[in-house]
Amino acid sequence: MTVAKEMFVYEFSEGSSASKELLGGKGAGLAEMSSLGLPVPPGFTITTEACRAYMGSGELPDAVVEQIEEYLAKLEASSGKKLGDPGDPLLVSVRSGAAVSMPGMMDTVLNLGLREEAVESFARRTGDARFAYDSYRRFIQMFGDVVLRVEHEKFEAALEALKRERGVADDTQLTAEDLKGLISTYKQTVADESGVAFPEDPREQLRLAIRAVFDSWNNPRAASYRREFGLPDDLGTAVTVQAMVFGNMGDTSATGVVFTRDPSTGEQGLFGEFLLNAQGEDVVAGIRTPRPISEMQEVLPRAFGELLETMHRLENEYRDMQDIEFTVERDKLYMLQTRSGKRTAVAGLKIAREMADEGIISREEAVMRIEPRQLNQVLHPYIDPGAELEVLAEGLPASPGAATGKVVFTASEAEERGGAGESVILVRKETTPDDVHGMVCAKGTLTALGGMTSHAAVVARGLGIPAVTGCKALEIDAAAQEFSIDGRTFGADDSITIEGSTGRVVEGEAPLVDPEMSEDFEQVLAWADEFRTLGVRANADTPQDAERARHLGAEGIGLCRTEHMFMEDGRLEIVREMILSDSEAATSAALARLAPLQRGDFEGIFKEMDGLPVTVRLLDPPLHEFLPDSIELRERLAGLEDGDSEEALEIRRQLRVVESLEEANPMLGLRGCRLGIVRPGLYRMQARAIAEAAKAVRARGCAPVVEIMVPLVGFRTELAEIRGEIEAMVQEVLEPEVQIRIGTMIELPRACTVADKIAWEADFFSFGTNDLTQTTCGLSRDDAEGAFLAHYLEQGFLTKNPFESIDVDGVGQLVSMACERGREANPHLKLGICGEHGGDPESIRFFHETGLDYVSCSPYRVPVARLAAAQTALEERGSRIEA
Amino acid sequence: MTVAKEMFVYEFSEGSSASKELLGGKGAGLAEMSSLGLPVPPGFTITTEACRAYMGSGELPDAVVEQIEEYLAKLEASSGKKLGDPGDPLLVSVRSGAAVSMPGMMDTVLNLGLREEAVESFARRTGDARFAYDSYRRFIQMFGDVVLRVEHEKFEAALEALKRERGVADDTQLTAEDLKGLISTYKQTVADESGVAFPEDPREQLRLAIRAVFDSWNNPRAASYRREFGLPDDLGTAVTVQAMVFGNMGDTSATGVVFTRDPSTGEQGLFGEFLLNAQGEDVVAGIRTPRPISEMQEVLPRAFGELLETMHRLENEYRDMQDIEFTVERDKLYMLQTRSGKRTAVAGLKIAREMADEGIISREEAVMRIEPRQLNQVLHPYIDPGAELEVLAEGLPASPGAATGKVVFTASEAEERGGAGESVILVRKETTPDDVHGMVCAKGTLTALGGMTSHAAVVARGLGIPAVTGCKALEIDAAAQEFSIDGRTFGADDSITIEGSTGRVVEGEAPLVDPEMSEDFEQVLAWADEFRTLGVRANADTPQDAERARHLGAEGIGLCRTEHMFMEDGRLEIVREMILSDSEAATSAALARLAPLQRGDFEGIFKEMDGLPVTVRLLDPPLHEFLPDSIELRERLAGLEDGDSEEALEIRRQLRVVESLEEANPMLGLRGCRLGIVRPGLYRMQARAIAEAAKAVRARGCAPVVEIMVPLVGFRTELAEIRGEIEAMVQEVLEPEVQIRIGTMIELPRACTVADKIAWEADFFSFGTNDLTQTTCGLSRDDAEGAFLAHYLEQGFLTKNPFESIDVDGVGQLVSMACERGREANPHLKLGICGEHGGDPESIRFFHETGLDYVSCSPYRVPVARLAAAQTALEERGSRIEA
Repeated sequence: MTVAKEMFVYEFSEGSSASKELLGGKGAGLAEMSSLGLPVPPGFTITTEACRAYMGSGELPDAVVEQIEEYLAKLEASSGKKLGDPGDPLLVSVRSGAAVSMPGMMDTVLNLGLREEAVESFARRTGDARFAYDSYRRFIQMFGDVVLRVEHEKFEAALEALKRERGVADDTQLTAEDLKGLISTYKQTVADESGVAFPEDPREQLRLAIRAVFDSWNNPRAASYRREFGLPDDLGTAVTVQAMVFGNMGDTSATGVVFTRDPSTGEQGLFGEFLLNAQGEDVVAGIRTPRPISEMQEVLPRAFGELLETMHRLENEYRDMQDIEFTVERDKLYMLQTRSGKRTAVAGLKIAREMADEGIISREEAVMRIEPRQLNQVLHPYIDPGAELEVLAEGLPASPGAATGKVVFTASEAEERGGAGESVILVRKETTPDDVHGMVCAKGTLTALGGMTSHAAVVARGLGIPAVTGCKALEIDAAAQEFSIDGRTFGADDSITIEGSTGRVVEGEAPLVDPEMSEDFEQVLAWADEFRTLGVRANADTPQDAERARHLGAEGIGLCRTEHMFMEDGRLEIVREMILSDSEAATSAALARLAPLQRGDFEGIFKEMDGLPVTVRLLDPPLHEFLPDSIELRERLAGLEDGDSEEALEIRRQLRVVESLEEANPMLGLRGCRLGIVRPGLYRMQARAIAEAAKAVRARGCAPVVEIMVPLVGFRTELAEIRGEIEAMVQEVLEPEVQIRIGTMIELPRACTVADKIAWEADFFSFGTNDLTQTTCGLSRDDAEGAFLAHYLEQGFLTKNPFESIDVDGVGQLVSMACERGREANPHLKLGICGEHGGDPESIRFFHETGLDYVSCSPYRVPVARLAAAQTALEERGSRIEA
Repeated sequence: MTVAKEMFVYEFSEGSSASKELLGGKGAGLAEMSSLGLPVPPGFTITTEACRAYMGSGELPDAVVEQIEEYLAKLEASSGKKLGDPGDPLLVSVRSGAAVSMPGMMDTVLNLGLREEAVESFARRTGDARFAYDSYRRFIQMFGDVVLRVEHEKFEAALEALKRERGVADDTQLTAEDLKGLISTYKQTVADESGVAFPEDPREQLRLAIRAVFDSWNNPRAASYRREFGLPDDLGTAVTVQAMVFGNMGDTSATGVVFTRDPSTGEQGLFGEFLLNAQGEDVVAGIRTPRPISEMQEVLPRAFGELLETMHRLENEYRDMQDIEFTVERDKLYMLQTRSGKRTAVAGLKIAREMADEGIISREEAVMRIEPRQLNQVLHPYIDPGAELEVLAEGLPASPGAATGKVVFTASEAEERGGAGESVILVRKETTPDDVHGMVCAKGTLTALGGMTSHAAVVARGLGIPAVTGCKALEIDAAAQEFSIDGRTFGADDSITIEGSTGRVVEGEAPLVDPEMSEDFEQVLAWADEFRTLGVRANADTPQDAERARHLGAEGIGLCRTEHMFMEDGRLEIVREMILSDSEAATSAALARLAPLQRGDFEGIFKEMDGLPVTVRLLDPPLHEFLPDSIELRERLAGLEDGDSEEALEIRRQLRVVESLEEANPMLGLRGCRLGIVRPGLYRMQARAIAEAAKAVRARGCAPVVEIMVPLVGFRTELAEIRGEIEAMVQEVLEPEVQIRIGTMIELPRACTVADKIAWEADFFSFGTNDLTQTTCGLSRDDAEGAFLAHYLEQGFLTKNPFESIDVDGVGQLVSMACERGREANPHLKLGICGEHGGDPESIRFFHETGLDYVSCSPYRVPVARLAAAQTALEERGSRIEA
């Protein structure tokens, strides 16, 4: 095919060579089916390029208008009918179809070509006057709504009024005469509402409909869908114009939807539904209940046989499970759409694995087929997909898994009742560190405020319990112990179900399905491990976390925080003693009491991770996080009867220390390695405890691989000093042949600019991208998420939350700079990342491209990371082959 | 001179070709004088290179030892005496001398070569037994102290004991016999304290003394001096070994110090002092009062004449005012040292100007001669250099100028008494924003804590009043209304004087000298303006500041903050109304009331800066800075009798707003352009007020050059949005031919990485290096300075405070990156800097090299910046010529 001029329109039969980007998913599918010789009603597709040209200028370019005319003429010729012909009119559908499926987001016009002059003959030819007038009525309604922007409700109101007048309940009970009258009313409605008469020229109708469908790319619904799924705004949609076929021409006609495999389970077989004597809309409208596809064999055996064969051909052709729409018009099967079907994670894994086993697709393709984030579904309990649900609201899917329980409004109550074994869901406006003791005992957490990286979200993910955050519809009256959603009120004895993988909040106790690490899952992940080059570790602070992480495929611990150990029962008192001590001796005594406890923590983790690396981060948070706050102390002081008692004096002393440690901006204050320098005993104690733990587990036959990580280094001198201290401690404890690697978190912009110098002192860098995002963007996560980040995202100042997916332009550039400079100065430098971004597929792509050695994420995100890492490696391989 | 082997030692006569870096200041001076044929006692200099070799290995390299022997032999040959010769001993001095003068920091040994066997003959030859034994006694004491590390006090104690025993008050009253006995005691002291006998071999003594002087480069005194003046630690010192001459050989001998011009005023003439029959030490010891140099003409006319001639030759040779040490031994003049003399700023300016006018130096040299920071002396009152002072303590020179006043301990008292006209000095542990009202009314502020960029320092510099901060000796008992320093207590009725240019705290009312912008000052600065290429603007928020800035040579306002305008009397209430308003209407009403006030502010400044650019920054700080804090509100609420009164309800409402605005890290929270986006009415009001003010002053015949600066931009989209709003406002108000430039502060690392994109929306960048330092280094200035920054500086983790002098490796790299990327994307982009660093000479060098268009600093630092900018331009020119 030689292309003399730019092609804006493709006939289905021409289109199989053109791309999905150009024709949209629907257009490409129709072209493909057409080229396979399958029964597709004829038609043509106007490209996304035409759409982009239209969006740019606001007008359909002349070339586009000309080509539409040309292809319409071809369509008329091949069908032997003419658009709007009073004798035997060609009717067409005008449908949107973007490269990426956006189901239901854009507009469609059906039955275009019917008009006053043609409807009678159409009735005659179809032998069904009611059907003909109903089709015309539907066309006017759709065209009025989509093209002329007359409110849908106006038409519905007229229809309802007519039904009331005729005393009937159902549309189908209206006669052809009734519908004729309704058509007049509709046309008057259009004239009244739009100020113009209903256009009667079918060619003009077609042009207007095509423009309207192009316009629908930018309707608010579609725009918000794209924002939600991170799709670009400038792709545009294709438009397919296709001869209408009718599944509602009596009992030899039908319409239906089939899947080539079960989209819920992935099982092979035949799954779908059909309706006899119906149009596709009727299935959607839910007025009639569709029948299982297997029953079609009885009523339409010829078409059914043809359908089965077609399904088989399509699955083999597309090498994926297909979601197929068809219509049978007077016993003749027509294929209207085929596309790769949406499926649950379980089904996706089974289909991918089986197709690979069957040799239909390669293992690489099997791995590429799974959406990493979807894995969350199979790693956590989820709501039974078959259950009937009353979804009350949707919030953000903040921590995966589903849970049911009684509503509680305070952390204390959650602790009390949850601790006693009751299933409770903690419902809060937002959570703070004071709520953690309650979150631990609840089955899940639901908050009205906060984003995907709010306190509630981060803590819940850390704990591995479900959470839904930012549920805006939720209005909480904690004092009254109730909340309301859309005017419905729920109290302390009501049960709800939350699903943190999807963000759904459901009334009552929805049936949950327990996750199973199926063979399919294990197999696909095992393949992923073969392909990926990026290591995957987990962030874990306890032996339990470490065990879970290892089970989920983590190749080490990339971040073992020691502060949580300090917070544990019985330890906080010693930590406070250490901080509040007024003498060197008292500090040392407190540290000496902490040392064996710390050693015990590390032993458990090292044992669990036998043979795999464990990166222990020395204490990071500001010391005041371990102390009671000054308000609490003041209140205690005010409550004392004797203001000069020993207790009062002690509280005053504590108050002085607490106040001296208070900071205007603790994020930028005395924390991380600064603590290690100002209070050197602390890191020495931790280093010794780590070395002693390593020694102890070695004695028990394990092979600990220990890395010590110094947080918040900004200056080479800081790391040099602390490294020296750690080395001294390690040498005192361990035999010389046992090595402990010493490295640093890179979490300050300055550390990135001087990464070469810092690399002289470091065996590894681990990027703390949470803090690096905060400092690089000047954004305090806690402050921003509640205040203006949501506004920024809604208004498009940001396209994505930089705490969820790495900010490539800003933070990413600094990470790249640090990697380059660090490796140049120290070619043996290991590079990893241990921020929240370590489990985000898009961020993983960036880390892979930047040449990091590994990512580290929370245990439950390890499989996601393994898969995402494999996919990015495969993509790279693919693009290398292409290039 | 061909050098076959490396030369570690130079005879004076050989040295004039070698550099000051190699020979030190003293060695180079002696070599130079020697080559001029001036009467210099013979000797040689061991190079700094030898010192570095010694410091590296801990041993004097063989080559150095050999060369010392060789040159000692030459010295013995030329003087006709032998070191330690019992008959006629050669005596030498062993003195330190680094490339940069570090007066009194390192060690010296005199009279080396005297020993038991030689002292008698020395006594005979000098005809003064007492002198001979005293010289020997002094040698043992110095050698014991410097070389053998015997505590100085041990020798003093023995001397005192002897004086008590003899019943005499003065050393000179001890007889030769007394001194003989003392020598024995000294030797015993050395043996007891050092555990070794006093070495008697003069050649060994010499080697030991040379090593000891090398060692003294690293004594704590010298190390801390270098840290204070930012000198590198690895240069090392040279050592000069020189034949001794004696000014204490009777009444035809003398010793003295002269300057070729007056070091206090710069006046031409003869200035100096001498002592008859004395050694240099005696002048230093202060036992005898030296006589004015002019009187030497009477007593030693021949030597005096020769001295005058020599001074003249030296000043012409060095083309600078010289500080000269000489000795007359038996009527023969010897020159011992010449160097460029230290001088006051006033003297420096006069000397530079006059020498340039006289054609001795070029104007470029005149500009290079002035140390920019020293200009602070002439811009502010200072303590009369001639006054007798009781210096109580030294703190940090936080804000230049000097002030005397009564001590007050609270801001309220400072406001009350200062407001009533009394001169008061506010003495605080540290200051907070609550103290500003008192600082404004005080003559000066003194704090115990805080650094050069602490709150007190920044506010004081902004107000242009002196401050001394971080005065560690100061112990304040505010409750008792007193403070103590070294055990001495001062109360409310005591007066003190502080000098913020030097950090001195002086007892009582020291006499102050008012600054004058002398002709010398104006002339040298005018020359500087000819040479510099970097623009200099000032940070000024009021017409008064603007006037002062213009007077001091500012070429515009680089930063006009609008928040201070919001804080003014009568406005804070409206600002609070605006923030606390619970409806759009109330917000608008409050903004409408603020608008004319803001317009008035801007009019005053635009008028003052007629024809020069003024960069107005839109509101930057978090809104809660304008509100009462929640503790205050709670206290007010608790104080109310009726908890349900209208007042109580209002306070509760305010409390809710205040709490909703509270932030964990306000530095990284809702401020800057984020405010402008979340509360768009605010910036619109400001933009309109600016445009209206410009219009108003144009109507009065002025030419306002207005730039609007948007703070805290991190994302291009932020600036694009706000720019659009500003442009809309400006277009509404101003005729189209009047342009207002719109730009942004670059103060986030992210802004630097995406500077190209931001530059698309910006006419200018102004680096806010204060905040950029905070975010890049992850350092909250307020938190760090009180907590660990001092520790970091003391312990050498940092060599300088990054808030005082720009952190070139970290922040600087980001600034360079932003400049490059910004200019590449927008070649018309203007680049400036408006942080505290704009007035720091070292930082100015960096900004010049980075290619910025201008710096902006507080008004009083404008002359400093003008000079520093000229010097860096001249240096660059120089290095271009060299290259």
